[in-house]
Order: sequence, then structure tokens, then C-alpha cells
Amino acid sequence: MTDLDKHQRMANAIRFLAIDAVEKAKSGHPGLPMGAADIATVLFTQFLKFDPTAPDWADRDRFVLSAGHGSMLLYSLLYLLGYEDFSLDELKNFRQLGARTAGHPEFGHGAGIETTTGPLGQGLGTAVGMAIAEKLQESRFGKDLVDHFTYVLAGDGCLMEGISQEALSMAGHLKLNKLIVIWDDNGISIDGAVSLTDSTDQVARFAASGWNTLSVDGHDPAAIAAALRQAQASDRPTLIAAKTTIGFGAPKKAGTNGVHGSPLGADEIAGTRAALNWTYEPFEIPSDILDAWRIAGLRSAHAHKDWQKRFAAVDAETRAEFERRNRGDLPAGFEKAVLDYKKQLAEDQPKMATRKASEAVLTVLNEVVPETIGGSADLTGSNNTKTKQTAPVTPDDFSGRYIHYGIREHGMAAAMNGMALHGGVIPYAGGFLIFSDYCRPSLRLAALMGQRVIHVMTHDSIGLGEDGPTHQPVEHYAALRAIPNMNFFRPADITETLECWQLALETQDKPSILALTRQDLPSQRKSFEEDNLCARGAYVLVDSDDDAAVTIFASGSEVEIAVEAHGELKAAGIAARVISVPSFELFEAQSDDYKASILGKSPVKIAVEAGIRMGWDRFIGSDGIFIGMTGFGASAPAKVLYEHFGITPKAVVAAARAKLGADPK
Amino acid sequence: MTDLDKHQRMANAIRFLAIDAVEKAKSGHPGLPMGAADIATVLFTQFLKFDPTAPDWADRDRFVLSAGHGSMLLYSLLYLLGYEDFSLDELKNFRQLGARTAGHPEFGHGAGIETTTGPLGQGLGTAVGMAIAEKLQESRFGKDLVDHFTYVLAGDGCLMEGISQEALSMAGHLKLNKLIVIWDDNGISIDGAVSLTDSTDQVARFAASGWNTLSVDGHDPAAIAAALRQAQASDRPTLIAAKTTIGFGAPKKAGTNGVHGSPLGADEIAGTRAALNWTYEPFEIPSDILDAWRIAGLRSAHAHKDWQKRFAAVDAETRAEFERRNRGDLPAGFEKAVLDYKKQLAEDQPKMATRKASEAVLTVLNEVVPETIGGSADLTGSNNTKTKQTAPVTPDDFSGRYIHYGIREHGMAAAMNGMALHGGVIPYAGGFLIFSDYCRPSLRLAALMGQRVIHVMTHDSIGLGEDGPTHQPVEHYAALRAIPNMNFFRPADITETLECWQLALETQDKPSILALTRQDLPSQRKSFEEDNLCARGAYVLVDSDDDAAVTIFASGSEVEIAVEAHGELKAAGIAARVISVPSFELFEAQSDDYKASILGKSPVKIAVEAGIRMGWDRFIGSDGIFIGMTGFGASAPAKVLYEHFGITPKAVVAAARAKLGADPK
Repeated sequence: MTDLDKHQRMANAIRFLAIDAVEKAKSGHPGLPMGAADIATVLFTQFLKFDPTAPDWADRDRFVLSAGHGSMLLYSLLYLLGYEDFSLDELKNFRQLGARTAGHPEFGHGAGIETTTGPLGQGLGTAVGMAIAEKLQESRFGKDLVDHFTYVLAGDGCLMEGISQEALSMAGHLKLNKLIVIWDDNGISIDGAVSLTDSTDQVARFAASGWNTLSVDGHDPAAIAAALRQAQASDRPTLIAAKTTIGFGAPKKAGTNGVHGSPLGADEIAGTRAALNWTYEPFEIPSDILDAWRIAGLRSAHAHKDWQKRFAAVDAETRAEFERRNRGDLPAGFEKAVLDYKKQLAEDQPKMATRKASEAVLTVLNEVVPETIGGSADLTGSNNTKTKQTAPVTPDDFSGRYIHYGIREHGMAAAMNGMALHGGVIPYAGGFLIFSDYCRPSLRLAALMGQRVIHVMTHDSIGLGEDGPTHQPVEHYAALRAIPNMNFFRPADITETLECWQLALETQDKPSILALTRQDLPSQRKSFEEDNLCARGAYVLVDSDDDAAVTIFASGSEVEIAVEAHGELKAAGIAARVISVPSFELFEAQSDDYKASILGKSPVKIAVEAGIRMGWDRFIGSDGIFIGMTGFGASAPAKVLYEHFGITPKAVVAAARAKLGADPK
Repeated sequence: MTDLDKHQRMANAIRFLAIDAVEKAKSGHPGLPMGAADIATVLFTQFLKFDPTAPDWADRDRFVLSAGHGSMLLYSLLYLLGYEDFSLDELKNFRQLGARTAGHPEFGHGAGIETTTGPLGQGLGTAVGMAIAEKLQESRFGKDLVDHFTYVLAGDGCLMEGISQEALSMAGHLKLNKLIVIWDDNGISIDGAVSLTDSTDQVARFAASGWNTLSVDGHDPAAIAAALRQAQASDRPTLIAAKTTIGFGAPKKAGTNGVHGSPLGADEIAGTRAALNWTYEPFEIPSDILDAWRIAGLRSAHAHKDWQKRFAAVDAETRAEFERRNRGDLPAGFEKAVLDYKKQLAEDQPKMATRKASEAVLTVLNEVVPETIGGSADLTGSNNTKTKQTAPVTPDDFSGRYIHYGIREHGMAAAMNGMALHGGVIPYAGGFLIFSDYCRPSLRLAALMGQRVIHVMTHDSIGLGEDGPTHQPVEHYAALRAIPNMNFFRPADITETLECWQLALETQDKPSILALTRQDLPSQRKSFEEDNLCARGAYVLVDSDDDAAVTIFASGSEVEIAVEAHGELKAAGIAARVISVPSFELFEAQSDDYKASILGKSPVKIAVEAGIRMGWDRFIGSDGIFIGMTGFGASAPAKVLYEHFGITPKAVVAAARAKLGADPK
């Protein structure tokens, strides 16, 4: 058997596992695994550095299947290479409930899946973050410990999505030379030929953003290997445009959209078996080929051992620090720093915008948590995400801790996911809350993957004023609270901002968003509390009996309004209490008793928030009073807008009195 | 005064109106108007075809200020050119409540604002749609009636946002030669120099997608004019890269980020006045310059008259049709077609997926509404948006009615906004509901602008099955219902699908989303009803008294579950009724009496929907029973998932019985 024969048989093993699994599941995407099997075989048997027996090895190369619909390519590889989580039974169980082999690769379903992909372009964006993290870690711990590549297999769809431009231009600018993107250039999308919808010269496009670009025949193993070698030596990120035939080997459907997203069917499978001279039963891999793959799986074992030796030779402190950061544990001094600062705040009672509060908090926390990596989507001065500890990262120097992400909210959020997945760093970055809409697909993936990324989203309401409705979030609180497994925080003052930051950093398995004001807010917390009150999601800020006549619920900047209304009601002899609600998500996680105590028994329940009502019925009931927005905002100074939209203490008091019958109608 | 002197004084008029308005408002963005004043002066005084006395002239050129923060550029132009809506008083009232001169240009605030911009990149995407609509209309009504350009002024931020890639690659592919984008290449963004975050050769990038590209000095009026002339003659869309100095004329701040987004301040203004030799008071425009601008405003008056003559010469039927389409009125036969089909459905009672129902409905409606333009983001066969009437649009032939938008949800949604704004066409197009996240910024703008765009979003729940959680909407119903002024429809069967389509088409001032299933659904509507029941938002589908023991609310595919549960409850002697809830938005618009009758007085209220609970408390109260999702979905066949997540008739019945105490606990 020649090397080429062997290569082809190894590649065919991928092809037929994919074909057979899709056929058995009666659903799935055989076209990509069949087309990209040659590329994957070369990459995984000659280049990728990994150890199936230690899939979490920090210095492994990362492989991202951005074209996630081709999941069977990845599952086949993981099985063939000997990853324990991906047995043949798992492959046979493709797309069934509880299987590790979900329709698209799901991070956490099994070791070897580096990230969740499927929504097109996300893998590319995530990989940029992995490559950034690699450079950050390399600059901190040296090449002896950190020296790996990030490989991406991307499809036409990935390159057509807008996020791809943000990702590639960021990677080109930052000269992420350890990032190697292989474009599976099969010229086919679901509707037909790509030429139906696009005429872009992708190679020229990547080159325009400073990439090293190469073009190869994606079915020629020698050419693929040569390109990968060149890519590894590049001082810039590399695009390898690999011309392939989708559904390679299928006699009738190859090269058409008919092979993209549905089973081949018995006849076409028989034809493919004949065409590729594959004489085995479904899911049968001949032992010589399985052996060849398993040997490929052991290929980097010595590299891993060498790395372990180098790691053992490092001083104990560095070793411990490297491991701590990779585990994601916070440093020992973290909690004390939080509490010390909280004590000081209880004394100082500073009045400031929560975006500035966040900067003050970060100035404390960045001092004790060296692995945070800040940034902003070109709103550094507005988001207040940069502190004295965070020098900018530049293309030639990754020792800094601050990334100017540019006007690329989507690319930024995806990159943050990749940084968190890579490990060793905790990414946080800023944008305007309104532009959460621009990066929502990546926010959702962070939640789905349970990644600790922290988004500082400022200018969080009509309180931003004159920029007007295009910039004023109204529906965004509801829309973000709706995403499962994500903390959406809206702190009311600097102490709550500190507590929310503490929670965001301590929560290893969820993303967090901090919605922060442009406008100043007074301190609400009047005394030092060791407990993190925001951890309850909602808590009694101004107390009275839980059967007070009126309970006012509020979040963020509207807590000030609630507290003022409370004062006026008290002066009128009406018992009221104020509940601050920094997080719906955390409130729901409390005990039933606690929740009942917070909801209370007041005959009048009022919620105040400068957004829409959706979600607040949970607190006030469908017959409760909501003081907030019913539509889009407007352009005017903030105070004028609050008056205009009737979000004022006066409105709260009037509504309470009317409901209580305290005023004649 | 030489021509150049005159040009410069005219441009300075823009500059100082912008400077003075921002200064007076104490907020705003002077940098762009100052930098782009020369470009705007050349464009508006020599090229743009418009008539301030008839701002809605169908064949006017469109101008889109994609860099919407530079709004004072546009307001200054509109005032100077004599647009009635933009008086000097309006300019003095910049960014104040109720002014036409909002912080960012808001469509509908005054004639002359072609679209709302501010969220970066949106203007570019919208302009692509305008240019598509121009070509569509030109192919239908001929060059005599339709022959205009779409001009865009875009900033660095617009080009950095991912949507720009979707927009430009679509425009390049479709050879939109009437689209001319002027890039205000000032090299500055908020965080500093663009070189801090990007190294892209934008000219090469546009060229890679087939654009004609030109580079000019953006302060040289002759060069700008020459470039615009070349652009007008191009057979491809044109990018004019115009190198400018942000804040041109400001002695200290020009060319820096200090001039981008805040008032210049008294000293710098004085310096700018001196530097540009502008000796007038704030808001004072010398009469010779105002005259020159007003004359420029009259420049296309004869072109408009000629057009009117040509229009008058067209046959009456074509004239009427042109006007009807531009008004946005539906053709006379529309309602009859709907009712005839509805009658047929009441007889046939077809069982089918609502995505297929939508195709069947469209096959009827596209026959009577010739101005609909269909499309899909590369999911034509899945979204079922293509009917026999809709031949594809190709780069060389716009007589078709179907656009293969490619894998560009964001670019598609923005383009649809532009098509609707242009007028004469009704854009509808398909995608997967999950990918509403990819185009949310454009959906929001459609709602904010009140544009009739119709999104067909299929695969609307875990019912899509094996593709798994990355493709299964869970939070999306809530997130989309949260957007003000938008119809989010989730029809339960083919008759509701027809009714929702009717509403979507008849609603001229709102976007609509139809969330449709992949899986089959039975007909629920058993008899013909002339009234559009979906227009009420929620209605009694299966009747009983409104104080029945149990009321079950459901939408879309879960109505089937509610109806089955109703049957089981009835068999057990428990009175129940079923409310179908196709639209929260329309329900809220009903009378209090109607809403009370729908909510009813049942002691047990249950909502069933394969999404999260958020929003349903409105119907069932915070103590109601919700049968739905609490987190992300999973990869498995649809029926398995419904069982797994407990969204079944059995679960509804069990919950109802438990609450009623009908079963021992």
C-alpha cells in the first residue's frame, strides 16, 4: 500500500463513518465530511498536536470545526484517533437524545470538542479568541509552556456571514500567525452553487486584511501538507483555500447541494462504496486503517511528555499560577479585596455612574486578578473598562491586558468565548447595551457553553440621553434575561456594581452581562454587609414589613426612583418597602421561601424600570403596576426623558396612592 | 469669488451649522460634518437629484448617511437646500425633545431623512436594499420612470461592522451599479487612530467583491466630482475612498478623536472660525451662501418636471399601478383571494407544517400581489419562500421576484428595510428563527421606522429536532415579542398562517415575523370564519364558558397539544377552553373588555409553548402553570424532544388535575 493509498483509505474511513451515521440517524450532513476528509486526515495525522489520553493538555493545538453541520467529520476523527468519549456506539447514536454526538458539535458533550459550532461563522470568531489567548499566555509563561496552533475548518457559509469579516480583520491586524484557517472551498451552499449568491474573491479579501494566503487542491494530501507547513512558518495568520468536492465519492450527488444536508440514501451509498472501493459493512473500519488512525492518535505523546518535563522544570510558583489560571480559580486575595473595598464604599458613599463605579471596582480587582483581559469595542472612554493595570495589547506585544477590539461587537464577543474556552484568561470587555443585539449569537453560545465571559454594557437606558432611540435599550433587559444560563446584572449603585462584578468573576460556568448607566447614581447601600446581597438576585433594600401596603421593585438606575418614592409614601403615612432586583436569573435560583418573602403580600406592587414590562409580572403579578417604557425612546437630555416617559418618583407615588384609593380619582 | 472659494464657503456653512448646533445642544458629533462637508457639498450641489418641494418624488436619488452620528451634516444640508421640515429653529433645537433634529437621523422625523441610521453599518446595508429596489422597479416600469442613484456616506465604523461585508458582497454580486458609497476615510475612531484596531486595505476588500473602486482627496472638490462622474458611469457598484480630516478646520482637535463625539468648546470654535475665515455669528449663514445653497436645492426642479411629463405620458393603468405600489396599498383583489382560499381550507382541512402552509398561502397571494419580492438566506427549500410566481433575480436581470440573499441574515434584513423604504415593493424573506439573532439590529430598525418587511422564520422550536440546541429557538419568542412595534406571529395551522400573512401584508407601518414549524400540524380551524381571528392576537379556539375550570393558552405548534389536552380533560368531565395566541402584540391592542374575556376567570390557567415562560404571566398570572422550556434544547428527533421536555397533552392534563385537586398528590 502506497502512502497515497493509505491516506485515501484513512480518509475514506472518515467518509463512511459520516455516511453511515447520517444514514442511520436519517438526518445530518454527509457532504462536508466527505469533501473535507482529505484535509482532516493530513491535518490530524501530520500536524495537529494533541493527546487523546489527555484531551485537556493546556498546550494542545486547538481544532475548530467552524462549519459545525459537518459534525460527523469531528466525531469520526475523535473515534478513529482514540478519544475515549467517542466510541463507535456514540457514532451509531448520532443525533439521538443523550448522545455525545449531537447534530452539531456541543462543547462539554465529550473531550475533544473544543467549542460549540453550528451557527455559521461563530467557530471562526471563536478561534480568533483562542489564538489571542495563546499569544497572551505565551507572553506570560513563555514558549516552553505555551506554543500551539489554532486550526479552523471553515465553509463558504462561515465566510459569507458578517462576523467573518470582524474576525478576520481582527486576526490580520493582530498578526495572529498561529491561526490557520482552512477554507473548505466546495462552491456549494444549500440553495445551490455559491456563485448564485456571491462573487467574492475570498483569497483577495483575506489578503486585504494582511493574511498570508495559499490555495491548494483539497484532495491532494501532499499539497495540503505543504500548505500547512508554510502556514506554520508564517508571521501572519494564514488562509488555506482548499478546493474540494462536496460529497466526494458520491457518484451522482458529489459536487451538488443534494449531498449537503440529508442522508445519501441506500443507492447512492452503494455507489459511493463502489466508487471509493470501500467493501466494508456500515460502521466497519478495517483493522489496518483503525490501527493507522490510532497510531496517529499517539503521534504527539512524546511532545506531551516533553512538555510535561519542561513544565516540571519550571519553578513551583509559576507552575501553580499556570495551573490555577487554567483551572479558572480566582487568586487567594480576591475575596478580601472585595470586602475591603466594600467597607470603604460603605464609608465613602460615592455618587457616580455605574460605568464609572465599574471602572473603580475594576481598578481594585484587576490588581488582584492578573488573568483578566479587558477591552472594548471602540468605546474605551465610555465603557470605562480600562484601568491602570491594563496596558494595550498590540500586534507585536501581547504582554498587555487590554484589547482594542475595534467596532466589532460580534467579533469581540466570539473572540471572548474563544479566550475563555482556551483557558488561562478571563475576558471582559465593553460595548453599549444597545449593541448587545449585534453580538447576540455569540452571547447565546457563551451561555450554551457555560463560559465565563463578562460583558460590560454601558449606556443602559434612556438615561443616556441625546443619542436617541437608536442607542437607547428598551427591550434589551427582557431580551437578555430571556437567554438561559446567563447572568444579566443591572446594579443600582457602586456597591451593587462591586457585588455583581464579584459574582461575574466567581461564576465559572456562566457568562455575565453588567448593564451600567451613563448617568450618576447615589449610593444606596448605607451600611457594610459582608454578604453579597446581589447573589440573591433580589433583596430588601429599604425595609418594612413584607405586608407593607406597597412594595416597589426596581433595578439599576430606577432604584433611586423607587427609594425616593418610598420616602414620599412614608411621609404620607403609607408603609412601603423597596426591593432591589439586580438579577432575575439569580432570584429564580433562590428557595421558594426566600422568593415568597421577597414577593411579599403587599396589596400594591409596583415595578420601576426604564424598559418594557416583559418579565416583571413575575414580581408584581399581571395586575401589578409597571412604571417604565411601552415603546422606543427619544432624543433629549436624560432628565427630560425620564419626565417625558413618566418614570419618576412622583409617578410611582401617584400610582400607589390611586391603587390604594388614597386619592380621589 | 472663485468657484473654489464659493465651494469652500458653502462647505463651511455646513461645518458651522454643525459646530453651533452641537455646541448649543452641549452634545453631538461635530467631527464628521466638518470632515465630510466638502464631499457633501459636491454631491448635493452637482450630483444628487432631488426636489426639496417634493421630497417624496419616487425617482429621486437616495442619500443615506450611514455614519448617522454625523446627523448635523444631514440636517444642515436639508436646511440649506430648503427642505421645509428643517428650519433654522429645528437646527437650534438639535437633540431636544420633540425636535426633528434627533441625535441620529430618525426616519419619519422630517422629509429628507431617507432612513434611520446610527447603529453602524446599517445605513450601508439599507442602501443596498434601496439600490436593489431601484433595479427591480426600473425593470418593471422602465428607465423613464425609474432611474436614480443611491448614495451612501459611510465611516470607518460602518466598514468595520460585519454587516458591511454582507452588504458589500451582496451589492458586488448583484452588480448594483447605481449604488455609490463614499467612505469618509478619516482614519479616526473613538478609541483613537483606526490603525489601533484595523489594518484592512478597504479598497482591496471592496475590489475583492467586484466593486469599482476610486480613491480621492476628500477635500478636493474637483477630484470628488470627477470620482462621482466615474462612479455614475460604472457597470458595478462604486466605492469612493475619500481621505478626509475629521474636524477639518479645528486648529487643535482636527484629525484627532477629540473632535468625534463632543462639542468643540468656545476656544476651539473661535479658532475654527478664524482658521476658516468664518466671521458670522452662531447659526448665521450669509445671504450669498444661503442663496447659493437654495439655488442648488432647485437644481433638479426641471428634472422633476421632465419626469412628471414622462409619467403623464404613460398609460393610465401603468400610472395607477406605479402609484398604488408606491403608496403601499394592496391590489383590489387581495381580500377576495384571502377569503376564497380560507373557504377552501375550511373544506380541505389540510395537515401540514406551517412553513409549507406559508408556501401554499404565498402561492395564492403572490398571484394577486405582484409587488412582493421573496427571498431566503440560503434556505429556500427549508423556508418554503419561493413560489411558482417568483423567478430568481440575477445580476443581469431584475425582472424576477426572488432574491437568493446568501448566508447573510443581517445583510438581508437590512436590505429588506431599504427595499421597503424605497417603496414600490414588499419584501419578504426567509431564515431559521434561531438566526433572528443574527439580524436583530435590522429587525429593530424596521420596527423603529415602522416599515413593512416580512420575515418568514421557520424551524421555530425544538420541533426542528436533530439539529440541536444551536438551532432550536427557546428564548426567541420572548426576545422578539419584546421589540416594540413589531408583529411576531406564531400561527397554529394553515388557516392561521393565512390570516397572519394577511395581517403582515395589510400592516403598512410595522414589520412582521412569522414563526413557522418544520413539523406537520393538523388544521385547527374547523369552520370558515370571514373575520381574521388572528387580528385579535388571541381568541377562543375551543370554546367553553370563560369561567371553565381550566383555560389553556398556546401558540403555534403547541396549540395542537392544548387541543388534545382539552379533549382529555373533557373526557374526564373537566370543563376547559383553549385560547390560541398567535400574537401578543395584537392582543394588547384589543379593548379591555375583550382582553378580560380572553383571560377569563378559570381557576386554573395554563400556557403551553415550546419556549421560555417570559411573557406568559400576562395570560396565566404569576401563579399560573407554564408547560414549556426552562433552558436550551437538545439534539434528537422532534417527538422524542417533546416527550423529554414534558411538553405533551399528558403533562398539561396532569398539571391541570393536580392544581384542581382532581388527583391525589
